[in-house]
Amino acid sequence: MDIRLVLVGIEGGANLGMIMRLAENFEVDDVVLVYPRELDMDEARRFSAKAVGRLDNLVVYKNLDEALSPCDVRVCTTAKFSLDGDILRSTIPSYDLPSFLERYKKPCIVFGRESSGLTRDELSKCDFVSTIPSSSEYSALNLANSVSIYLYEIYKSKRKRDLVNLAEREELEQAVSIFGDIASMALGDETKIMRARTAMRHVLFRSSPSKPEVRILTHVLRRVKRRIEGSSTKQP
Amino acid sequence: MDIRLVLVGIEGGANLGMIMRLAENFEVDDVVLVYPRELDMDEARRFSAKAVGRLDNLVVYKNLDEALSPCDVRVCTTAKFSLDGDILRSTIPSYDLPSFLERYKKPCIVFGRESSGLTRDELSKCDFVSTIPSSSEYSALNLANSVSIYLYEIYKSKRKRDLVNLAEREELEQAVSIFGDIASMALGDETKIMRARTAMRHVLFRSSPSKPEVRILTHVLRRVKRRIEGSSTKQP
Repeated sequence: MDIRLVLVGIEGGANLGMIMRLAENFEVDDVVLVYPRELDMDEARRFSAKAVGRLDNLVVYKNLDEALSPCDVRVCTTAKFSLDGDILRSTIPSYDLPSFLERYKKPCIVFGRESSGLTRDELSKCDFVSTIPSSSEYSALNLANSVSIYLYEIYKSKRKRDLVNLAEREELEQAVSIFGDIASMALGDETKIMRARTAMRHVLFRSSPSKPEVRILTHVLRRVKRRIEGSSTKQP
Repeated sequence: MDIRLVLVGIEGGANLGMIMRLAENFEVDDVVLVYPRELDMDEARRFSAKAVGRLDNLVVYKNLDEALSPCDVRVCTTAKFSLDGDILRSTIPSYDLPSFLERYKKPCIVFGRESSGLTRDELSKCDFVSTIPSSSEYSALNLANSVSIYLYEIYKSKRKRDLVNLAEREELEQAVSIFGDIASMALGDETKIMRARTAMRHVLFRSSPSKPEVRILTHVLRRVKRRIEGSSTKQP
């Protein structure tokens, strides 16, 4: 899936810069503008950070139809949605978007102006419309923040990168087992030993610990066990 | 769950402003600063938009411990995570955070400096650490955009607000049924009629349409049906 981000009538240099950076953060190559306002490009450069190079290669389209032409599905975004008769503002929530995009090769995601969003004519050019769930008191997010949420949703669905080096079941079992040995040395009562063992099992398995975390815990438990064994042989 | 957002050493007025707006968008009342740099407050006001009032009531703490004291769980955020031995940077991904927060009443979510994030000393004050999945080429998001993603994840888990006025099963069945009637008038072959009916059923049920969408479709189908019935009685 190769997304095109279409920014219609963007007004803020800071937003443009931040969106360039987001495109880099979430690996979106294709960002295009449609009739942008006059932008503060110094501000754009400042907010684009390491993605500043993208500002030199911006593609600008004269109208929305041209910008949408290569896409096999076009999704408009809006902060104003309707639960009633306004079909144009019937939306799906941002978190459902990735599942609806799965079957398409080149989705266009269209964002409107900071001040007024997309016009009804622009909304009517999309195949469907999406919105971000937010407070009914103040629902309109800053443009770059909206973009960040959509790109994040799509990125995480494309590629749930291993952010965690999760411990294997055997590693957790081993930690529980050694903790059980220690418990049985420290406690007399069989019921209490079982409870302690179970508590440790629950805590470890529920916390989805990483390999390094379990390794250091197991290491400590093993040392403690040896220490207790040593001291108990010394005191016969 | 009543979240406290803790911003450590924030450097940018635009970011502070955008975060105030995000707090309003995602209904987070408690935002505090810890040793902020000298900030461009004009820029902060501009980017806070309708949440500008929040800038007058900002709480600033002298140190992180004080800021964290009311919280029953403290989560630090980082763009630099470790899959190996660096326990301090063993992270859980942003999308798993809400499930880990469920049992707490007052979670603190801590964000570091735009330039350098949180120090190791600051990271060590947290109960665990989280990161946003992003490109390995350029993983560091702008501060406000990171905040937007975390607040969004927590908000959507707290309250999956009905953004869609989903059609009931009976409404979809009715549309399928009327379409079937039309198909049987338009097509002679029973197999083709069944296929058309099935295709319509699949499309409608897969697209999770809203009530207004199904109502207008059903209305049109009903009109078409009557029209065909009328014309067929006229031509005996």
